[in-house]
Amino acid sequence: MVIKYKDQFPGLKNANGHDWHYLDTAATAQKPQCVIDAMVNAMGRDYATVHRGVYARSANMTMAFEAARRRTAQFIGAASENEIVFVRGATEGINLVAQCWGGANIGAGDRIILSQLEHHSNIVPWQMLAQKMGAHIDICPLTDDGQIDLNWLEANITPQHKLVALAHISNVLGSVLDAKRAAKAAHKVGAKLLLDGCQAAPRLRLNMVEMDCDFYVFSGHKLYGPTGIGVLWARHDILQSMPPYQGGGAMIDRVSFDGTSFADAPQRFEAGTPMITEVIALHSAIDYVDAAGVDAIFAHENALVTSAQEALAKFNSITLYGPENSAGILSFTMEGVHPHDIGTILDESNVAIRAGHHCAQPLMEYLDVPATARASFGIYSDESDVEALVAGLHRVQKIFG
Amino acid sequence: MVIKYKDQFPGLKNANGHDWHYLDTAATAQKPQCVIDAMVNAMGRDYATVHRGVYARSANMTMAFEAARRRTAQFIGAASENEIVFVRGATEGINLVAQCWGGANIGAGDRIILSQLEHHSNIVPWQMLAQKMGAHIDICPLTDDGQIDLNWLEANITPQHKLVALAHISNVLGSVLDAKRAAKAAHKVGAKLLLDGCQAAPRLRLNMVEMDCDFYVFSGHKLYGPTGIGVLWARHDILQSMPPYQGGGAMIDRVSFDGTSFADAPQRFEAGTPMITEVIALHSAIDYVDAAGVDAIFAHENALVTSAQEALAKFNSITLYGPENSAGILSFTMEGVHPHDIGTILDESNVAIRAGHHCAQPLMEYLDVPATARASFGIYSDESDVEALVAGLHRVQKIFG
Repeated sequence: MVIKYKDQFPGLKNANGHDWHYLDTAATAQKPQCVIDAMVNAMGRDYATVHRGVYARSANMTMAFEAARRRTAQFIGAASENEIVFVRGATEGINLVAQCWGGANIGAGDRIILSQLEHHSNIVPWQMLAQKMGAHIDICPLTDDGQIDLNWLEANITPQHKLVALAHISNVLGSVLDAKRAAKAAHKVGAKLLLDGCQAAPRLRLNMVEMDCDFYVFSGHKLYGPTGIGVLWARHDILQSMPPYQGGGAMIDRVSFDGTSFADAPQRFEAGTPMITEVIALHSAIDYVDAAGVDAIFAHENALVTSAQEALAKFNSITLYGPENSAGILSFTMEGVHPHDIGTILDESNVAIRAGHHCAQPLMEYLDVPATARASFGIYSDESDVEALVAGLHRVQKIFG
Repeated sequence: MVIKYKDQFPGLKNANGHDWHYLDTAATAQKPQCVIDAMVNAMGRDYATVHRGVYARSANMTMAFEAARRRTAQFIGAASENEIVFVRGATEGINLVAQCWGGANIGAGDRIILSQLEHHSNIVPWQMLAQKMGAHIDICPLTDDGQIDLNWLEANITPQHKLVALAHISNVLGSVLDAKRAAKAAHKVGAKLLLDGCQAAPRLRLNMVEMDCDFYVFSGHKLYGPTGIGVLWARHDILQSMPPYQGGGAMIDRVSFDGTSFADAPQRFEAGTPMITEVIALHSAIDYVDAAGVDAIFAHENALVTSAQEALAKFNSITLYGPENSAGILSFTMEGVHPHDIGTILDESNVAIRAGHHCAQPLMEYLDVPATARASFGIYSDESDVEALVAGLHRVQKIFG
């Protein structure tokens, strides 16, 4: 079963013929052959523009494009495909919400709550908005094991708070948010909840209606899909209330120099020729993940993290960060060795991990480290990857010991 | 030679086994096999994230990504690769300039000049900006043969005008702007010149330094490259003076809850995981176009337009629009037949043209037509396509006559 998965990913073969132990899936996932094939067909055999051509190929491509929107809506349990906005990635999705919804709904003196563990993409857009509008940002602290402290949230949220923006799963610690509880806390004071679902979409069963958040974003490339594509979900009434984002073709109703009217959501937020082939290939990625089953993927990755946690706990020199029950992500440091050196030495053993601040500098500050090493797992990871990681870390210890 | 080109494009084969006469290259270009192959390798064999990984694959991908930036700079004669911002497409490029440069440099009472033939992507962002800032838009009229009237521009531009934004080549008429003359007129009053190069990048030799404009945008998918990628060029001192666009990872210097500092241009404008595989495939598309030679492509397409113009002029019922010396684009109407019906009937003969307003409603209004039919040529077009177009139009005439 596991071997079968590895075989489906051409990116997991190493140029030098050795097995490659890719443990950087939280940064970006490798692509299964079916996704690459979908891209090839969309760029070749089936290629045409969408929404405009009067010829059959373009009409077919338009149907495929909109079928991908419906499939995405179904995958995340949205009420309607009209709630799906295709964006470049999660970062753009958050910026779109900050600019269009935030620009219209966050005013001077209003407050926004973020958490200590947010990715820069869920910090900087809100800082830019807050600075522009004269709003304030409050930081929700973490529990001792690296979860967003919802007790603090419930105790400290006020009617001045218009928005809460949190990671559904931390990209550094693997901690999973209780999204429903966060939504309830936000809505109690009339605030909206935005969730950064980059790490959650590939491994948690999502249901927008049940979860009851207001905005949700994720990136295609972390979901075994292509780069350059992501999804912003929002309730349709919220989307319809928002002013447009970028101006251009496809997002208009009628353009004249006397005045221009705009299309309904989601088209209003998709100016210009869209990421046609990326959307088609994202559809294939969603089919792939759904066929494997996100529950099975979560359990598979969680078991690997547990196995790695146990092995790494045997090193006296290693400190582990985050909760025991992590969603496929393991951050650690080694006494006396900079994480970059760990990464470089592991690379020589064909083990690819990430070392750095993981676009979460405020979390590094909180953990009181300049950086961590991070091993992250995916559908194609297996025990051989954990073994290679552990063997590599013994080598690091030998070199630095 | 021409046959060879067609063979390189898998998209030009029709599902029913017949030749497919694709005459919608101005909307989007088909992709040569080398571009598709570059995408396949980037998504598989070579796949990794950029700018962050400490392992070799990621370092190699970063080098390839930045090599594409250098190649793009060289292709358009930019002074430095630091003047190249990767965006989703031309539409996003214009919106970025409107938001970041315009937001800081266009104030109440200031004026912007657009032309009557602009694509919606070069109208709507300026309308949104003008409305927000209290600025005004003036419209440069066209000459009788459908060129932007630079005499009018020279006579009517004033120091109140801060920006002139024009199409380098019209996507409806194929008219080519004298860019240097437009730049001179703009700079004389201290205004900046933005050129929409979507139709120009695939068929004109570009040299940013010589042309002396201030902003230039184009889309990858019209340059035989992938969707979801485009280029904004601007002089580096202008880019450096501009505030950031989207907030997130990769565009920051340091993030803290006390305050965040931003990276230098162009990184400041590229938040989040970039369009990695699209950038790699764009490099391949640029190599492809450069190997054929834009001068040769222009001459090839221009000869086909001339041939089509001559053939269509023999129809009493057909009206042609635009200059004789068109850059590969031919717009026309047929008395008593709606352009959509022309398109639909031609489609039955395996000829794909575009019918509609071509995202240029103000131009349609000026031409006093609801829509036009448009045949547009590319590197792979040949006389067989012109013959199929003409035969199809005879069929249209027979059906409606």
